[in-house]
Amino acid sequence: MKLTCSRNHLMDAISTVQRAVATRSANPVLDGILLKADQELVLTGYDNETGIEYRMEADISQKGGLVVPARVLSEVVRKLSDNHVYLAIKDDTVLVVESGKSVFNIRGYAADKYPEIQFVEEDAKISLKQSTLRQMINQTIFAVSTDQSRPILMGLNLICENDTLTIVALDGFRLAVRKETIPGLDMNVNIIIPAKAMSEISRIMSDTDEEVIISPSHNYIIFNKGNVKVVTRLIRGEFLNYKSIIPRDANTSLMISPEVLYAAVARASIMIDTEDRRFPVVFQTPDADTLTIESKTDIGTAREEIPIALSGDKIEIDFNPRFFMEALREVSDDQVILTFSGNLQPCSIKPESGEHFYYMILPLRR
Amino acid sequence: MKLTCSRNHLMDAISTVQRAVATRSANPVLDGILLKADQELVLTGYDNETGIEYRMEADISQKGGLVVPARVLSEVVRKLSDNHVYLAIKDDTVLVVESGKSVFNIRGYAADKYPEIQFVEEDAKISLKQSTLRQMINQTIFAVSTDQSRPILMGLNLICENDTLTIVALDGFRLAVRKETIPGLDMNVNIIIPAKAMSEISRIMSDTDEEVIISPSHNYIIFNKGNVKVVTRLIRGEFLNYKSIIPRDANTSLMISPEVLYAAVARASIMIDTEDRRFPVVFQTPDADTLTIESKTDIGTAREEIPIALSGDKIEIDFNPRFFMEALREVSDDQVILTFSGNLQPCSIKPESGEHFYYMILPLRR
Repeated sequence: MKLTCSRNHLMDAISTVQRAVATRSANPVLDGILLKADQELVLTGYDNETGIEYRMEADISQKGGLVVPARVLSEVVRKLSDNHVYLAIKDDTVLVVESGKSVFNIRGYAADKYPEIQFVEEDAKISLKQSTLRQMINQTIFAVSTDQSRPILMGLNLICENDTLTIVALDGFRLAVRKETIPGLDMNVNIIIPAKAMSEISRIMSDTDEEVIISPSHNYIIFNKGNVKVVTRLIRGEFLNYKSIIPRDANTSLMISPEVLYAAVARASIMIDTEDRRFPVVFQTPDADTLTIESKTDIGTAREEIPIALSGDKIEIDFNPRFFMEALREVSDDQVILTFSGNLQPCSIKPESGEHFYYMILPLRR
Repeated sequence: MKLTCSRNHLMDAISTVQRAVATRSANPVLDGILLKADQELVLTGYDNETGIEYRMEADISQKGGLVVPARVLSEVVRKLSDNHVYLAIKDDTVLVVESGKSVFNIRGYAADKYPEIQFVEEDAKISLKQSTLRQMINQTIFAVSTDQSRPILMGLNLICENDTLTIVALDGFRLAVRKETIPGLDMNVNIIIPAKAMSEISRIMSDTDEEVIISPSHNYIIFNKGNVKVVTRLIRGEFLNYKSIIPRDANTSLMISPEVLYAAVARASIMIDTEDRRFPVVFQTPDADTLTIESKTDIGTAREEIPIALSGDKIEIDFNPRFFMEALREVSDDQVILTFSGNLQPCSIKPESGEHFYYMILPLRR
């Protein structure tokens, strides 16, 4: 391998594929980035679950490839002061990096030590804006379970029903659903993608209108944004059908600004020591015009009144404030509807119009 | 106590005095901030070594005081959405905070549980720009020892000789000296101030031309910037006379850009695993026009050539790269002079003209 390329472009490639690089894995080759020069320079990172491939332009005078430790390569390229970089292989497993008056030799591994990763896309594809996919992930992923004993709930459920793409997360205490209509989509898919991979995919998606092509397969899924492809294994099993747990009827409903409610719950949660989950924040409607958010602990008390227009029964319910804050933080709508079905039943959070998101939060038992 | 004040001003006061608040101290009162309302609202934080007092305007309708946990008070005030805050004391030890539609009760302690801290200034005073003091601290404090068995070296040595203020730090491997001429100053002082306190003082100093008045006493020192006073105990003992360890003669000298040298040393240090101090960065002059910066480890090699004009003997010396990086990072001069007295002797870093700073770095033994 002998080539020259842009330092800034190479840095972007390294930062991107590094998201999938294992750290301190049993196989030291996976702590590395695979560099392959053929028609283009291709960088790959992989952690046995998720692989990221980044293709970039380079002026290649000799083909070849090797694996180099990701941390060292990343630090070397980040600290170069010249945008012109020369890369070459010496003694089969040493990467030579030259730029300005600097010369580095980084010890690596032969390319054939690196696992073969398949980036083969199926015919069935979902195409949507990268910014939309990013938003769909961010608006659901916080509700994913961290309980290792329930591996299915550590994933995001991706559902295609006709022209609707839905992402669902739940952890036994709350549910997050985000829907998007994709004109022209006609597919039936129901798969579970590891949350860790989805979190990296969200970060790799740009904030622009550029498209990402999603190609689900039997046991893996590929996200293709042109020069970058991400492949990740799927979680086997069947996800809980979220529709079966949504309360059918509501006795109480009120409209509120998610920003105002977030701030009130955040203030009330100050009194709740983060290490102690026993203490709830209490939602109460003393009259039809007022919602109070209240907490009482050994540290002190917080109480706040929010003017509302209540329809239906009064409520007095204990909640874990974090569940509200994590959901409300991701809502960009001006107003949301809260509905309740009684003091021991969950709270639903819905948009004022449409059904692009749905959150459900279980109360704490007194 | 009953008063109203500005949320933003109160937040600034809390953030400032919180720098001196102990965390999880044996005495829970010291985890708190003392609030006292008399002519002004005065906030105090103290950790048995350093005390910070912040005086602010408030519309006080009833005098009084108490101590409240710093973390809770800080979070409550930070999260208020209205700039108008009402503070009052309830049941002697509970602070009531009201703002907008929010009401908080924070459990605290009676003011008389808080230690008495003396902010009494002596007649002898040093006056200089806050931005200058901040720079003098930042340009020396990195060389302070972290070795608990040598408590004297865990402080900064502050020396007044006639009209010159000098701050010195050293840890047995390197020396940092920063001098400033203060017109009109005529004082002889030689004291040792704990580095932790100096680090907080640096952060409290503004970046403007406003003055700070330093008032050293027998066993404490006060820094007064008007509405904020910091008092800290001194470290007892005698600091090493730094002049006695500065090499008298140099055999080698060269001029270099501190920015260029910093970048080269930073790049060479990538190959040195941070947990392994055995590996040096080698400074070498293969000819009179070139300085090479080089490292070789199991990870790989880095080598860089910097064009220079050498006077005197050639050198080949091993250094700990961190010591160079920490010193060079703080130098804003365009060029510095490096001098050497042989391959087993320290390197001196001096300004091109003047003597406002002086750094000395010992070589690593081969």
